[in-house]
Amino acid sequence: MQGTTEDTQAEDTRAAAYTPTGRTVPTRSADRASYDRELVHAILDEGYVCHLGFVREGAPVVLPTLYGRVGERLYVHGSTGSRPLRMTGQGDPGLPVCLTVTHVDGLVLARSAFHHSINYRSVVVHGIAHEVTDPEERRLALDALVDHVVPGRSADSRPANKKELAATAVIRLDLEEVSAKVRAGGADDEPEDLGLPHWAGVVPLRKGYDTPVPNADLAPGTGLPDYLTAR
Amino acid sequence: MQGTTEDTQAEDTRAAAYTPTGRTVPTRSADRASYDRELVHAILDEGYVCHLGFVREGAPVVLPTLYGRVGERLYVHGSTGSRPLRMTGQGDPGLPVCLTVTHVDGLVLARSAFHHSINYRSVVVHGIAHEVTDPEERRLALDALVDHVVPGRSADSRPANKKELAATAVIRLDLEEVSAKVRAGGADDEPEDLGLPHWAGVVPLRKGYDTPVPNADLAPGTGLPDYLTAR
Repeated sequence: MQGTTEDTQAEDTRAAAYTPTGRTVPTRSADRASYDRELVHAILDEGYVCHLGFVREGAPVVLPTLYGRVGERLYVHGSTGSRPLRMTGQGDPGLPVCLTVTHVDGLVLARSAFHHSINYRSVVVHGIAHEVTDPEERRLALDALVDHVVPGRSADSRPANKKELAATAVIRLDLEEVSAKVRAGGADDEPEDLGLPHWAGVVPLRKGYDTPVPNADLAPGTGLPDYLTAR
Repeated sequence: MQGTTEDTQAEDTRAAAYTPTGRTVPTRSADRASYDRELVHAILDEGYVCHLGFVREGAPVVLPTLYGRVGERLYVHGSTGSRPLRMTGQGDPGLPVCLTVTHVDGLVLARSAFHHSINYRSVVVHGIAHEVTDPEERRLALDALVDHVVPGRSADSRPANKKELAATAVIRLDLEEVSAKVRAGGADDEPEDLGLPHWAGVVPLRKGYDTPVPNADLAPGTGLPDYLTAR
């Protein structure tokens, strides 16, 4: 009973926000920063590609790559021969990474050149990435990566076979040192500029999907699945 | 005359492609890599936000930020108090950076989980960023940053004043060590999977602009400029 109570308490008292650290508190525009867990999850789940940064021979490398989220864990995968993944192998203490996801929501036109901006939502995750070797966690991670592209899709595709699994490295990054940053709303011009004759406001970026394009070699009679027609 | 001829030759013989280096030749999917100058420029010019990577205290940092291009130079700006820009000041040998721009064009659904992918176009630039101190180059760079948001906009806004210029740091990254990577087309399934009953193909991402939203404090009678109505 005591154990159950403790578990429940642990669940209930899990902070609604990540704890800020020296590197997740911005030096500027601090009012745009947030550590809210739900906001961070929402921004991560809406993205398709993250930008994964790591250090190679003292220099930064930033590569776009797919990712998936399972609770408080992010997963990235790649060929076992790819550079960042080769650095997280067994016996390795892990690879320091910074994983960033950004959505551009609108163009902000101000009267002054100085106050031009972009409306955006971003999440920056700092941490140590580790290779995932547990077969069950690897399966979950690979499903999450496919479901991140289209929710529910992993159940409607052929699972990875032995050869594919052997060729795939999966790395995990825990959501611990995390911050979100959001800019929304109109232009913030100086009071003395409000009378200038330049148009000011926001040009929202439209996002959506065009009609799915079936593969030319699609087996006859293969219809578009419901999870795609619903978009 | 000789000088003119040499200049012309230099222009004519400028390579149509960037020279690959150890870190711009990918370890995998090498067929997706390109060093074509025009392709690189087109990908860069279509983006709004780049992901700028640098190293701080041995760890990678990846931040989304605006950028602008003038010929073979990229410019990034920020507050003189912001972290990466503080590291490129006078007397500093420059800041090693990696600047990446990515467009997500479509979701690629394969019969096999393994071959799910994203259609994308990306550019990765490696190099040393230097602070720009020349007033004329700073002006050009700041105009390019505004014109990158909306072409032609810098001419229709109040230029930066002394105070704003003093608060703004501009850094430059030359386009020398550059590669593009492009994935396009349908799913690449294994021959033995082509008969599986799972739909395969591409869901294209639609991009565009919604109707501009004027600032609430817009001066009366300020109409939408032609460069916005034309979208």
